[in-house]
Amino acid sequence: MVKRTYAILGTGALGGFYGAKLQKSGLEVHYLLKSDYQQVRENGLIIESKDGDFTLPQVNAYNNVEKMPQCDVVIVSLKTTQNQLLRDLLPPIVKDNGTVLVLQNGLDIEAEVAEIVSNVSIIGGLCFLCSNKVAPGHIHHLDYGQITLGEYTSNYQLTGITQKMREVTADFENAGISIELLEDLLLGRWKKLVWNIPYNGLSVILDARTDELMADIHTRQLVENLMWEVAAGAKSTGRIIPESFIQTMLDYTVKMKPYRTSMKIDFDECRPLEIEAIFGNPFRKAEAAGVYLQQIRCLYQQLKFLDMRMRK
Amino acid sequence: MVKRTYAILGTGALGGFYGAKLQKSGLEVHYLLKSDYQQVRENGLIIESKDGDFTLPQVNAYNNVEKMPQCDVVIVSLKTTQNQLLRDLLPPIVKDNGTVLVLQNGLDIEAEVAEIVSNVSIIGGLCFLCSNKVAPGHIHHLDYGQITLGEYTSNYQLTGITQKMREVTADFENAGISIELLEDLLLGRWKKLVWNIPYNGLSVILDARTDELMADIHTRQLVENLMWEVAAGAKSTGRIIPESFIQTMLDYTVKMKPYRTSMKIDFDECRPLEIEAIFGNPFRKAEAAGVYLQQIRCLYQQLKFLDMRMRK
Repeated sequence: MVKRTYAILGTGALGGFYGAKLQKSGLEVHYLLKSDYQQVRENGLIIESKDGDFTLPQVNAYNNVEKMPQCDVVIVSLKTTQNQLLRDLLPPIVKDNGTVLVLQNGLDIEAEVAEIVSNVSIIGGLCFLCSNKVAPGHIHHLDYGQITLGEYTSNYQLTGITQKMREVTADFENAGISIELLEDLLLGRWKKLVWNIPYNGLSVILDARTDELMADIHTRQLVENLMWEVAAGAKSTGRIIPESFIQTMLDYTVKMKPYRTSMKIDFDECRPLEIEAIFGNPFRKAEAAGVYLQQIRCLYQQLKFLDMRMRK
Repeated sequence: MVKRTYAILGTGALGGFYGAKLQKSGLEVHYLLKSDYQQVRENGLIIESKDGDFTLPQVNAYNNVEKMPQCDVVIVSLKTTQNQLLRDLLPPIVKDNGTVLVLQNGLDIEAEVAEIVSNVSIIGGLCFLCSNKVAPGHIHHLDYGQITLGEYTSNYQLTGITQKMREVTADFENAGISIELLEDLLLGRWKKLVWNIPYNGLSVILDARTDELMADIHTRQLVENLMWEVAAGAKSTGRIIPESFIQTMLDYTVKMKPYRTSMKIDFDECRPLEIEAIFGNPFRKAEAAGVYLQQIRCLYQQLKFLDMRMRK
């Protein structure tokens, strides 16, 4: 059997980590880089990981998609704030009948990809990964790593478990990454938002860690109200998030160690926030179905203000 | 005609200013003080005002209501965060058939007063005053000063213009304070909230001045959404705020000089915020009528978190 080839669009803490794991397992991987290109081309990638450190002294590094070969699977691991670049980056490097694996947060990202490329499969992936880029080409993997995958079709119709999903899963599991398969990608994305919307949003707006938000009775209630609003958004698109799932997320967060969310880290480090994918798309999608997520829209507007001021 | 006597409950930037103006016009005024008692008893009050500076070397200062005489009119000019004290402070000093004039922000304050005293008239007043206490007994009146008055009856039934309102108006106008009379106090209070809720709330949560909130398209829209939510709250209690009023408030704020709201000043100076009167009572009152002011409740919960953390 011919091995599948992979391209990584965005070789940062996430794309660099999964790309390196796939390459280490014996697959051919091609990495697109920007500022780290020179360093990685000359010195490869260094992965410090709780599952074992390793180095890839030689990697296929590129600073231009025109020089990259077409690959079977293209992993989109940019931040969603850069997705306007996909129109130029994606078409040249994905094979006809290939797969685009979108490892990004938020909602409706796959629909944007589907407008750009045709005759490919689009798989959405939700990553539960704790990893940082500590220097160019040097990634520190702190915890977790599993991915939840589901295939996208127009309007998020249910697809079940497809052949393409099984292929990608085999490659990732062979590389030591555990995969969970979803029959309903849209439900999976809404469920991830149940956590991401309240905690990412309020951590930035109120300059607070998860434990502080859960210790105060008012923000504890606001978090729960926001989770219910996410569930209302899911329902407006025909997906049901059970009450028990919300309770589980609350309990799980109370038991977590004090945690600074990824959006708060982005904010503290003056990086653009993924507000449209995580907040804007959900409330607009629900609004299109006649359901108004007023608290989520309120957070969205507050975050847009803070993001804009931070960039000034 | 016997002149009416006045008591001032809370001799700060607001109560001290109006009390001094009334005394200067020839009325007998009795002032309750706490931390500034000794200073004011010995040296009186100093008013620096854009309408002319003046000093009252001798004033009737008290640090205990038991020593105060019963007065015809008691002005409640504490911050609403201290209203739990009214149960002890108010009954001893208001005459039978006297008047309590509540010069505070927010909603439903008069109802709390009505539970404490009976056989008195309760008048609510909305102050448009820009004044600071710069030292004990020393008040700096920067701008404005007019008061809008309406009489309270159970459940804010309409009262029209009452005799008691006319009496208080005569005293204030004689002291150089301009008064506008309301036939509908509740509508007046909701209208003031159209401005206070968005600007006071967002200025604290986003650390922003009014001009910054109006310059960003997202917070500009959030301000307007919040104003509409106040109008929905008003409607839930049978009061109609016209669309033109909201437009006027927006236009007026755009034209204002960059302004740090009073709640932001309280926050920056680590004083308790009037969250319950301005945010909590409105959304609870609407909720009791079956209308959910979700964005206002969201701001309420965010502010409660920030207020609690600031006090720690």
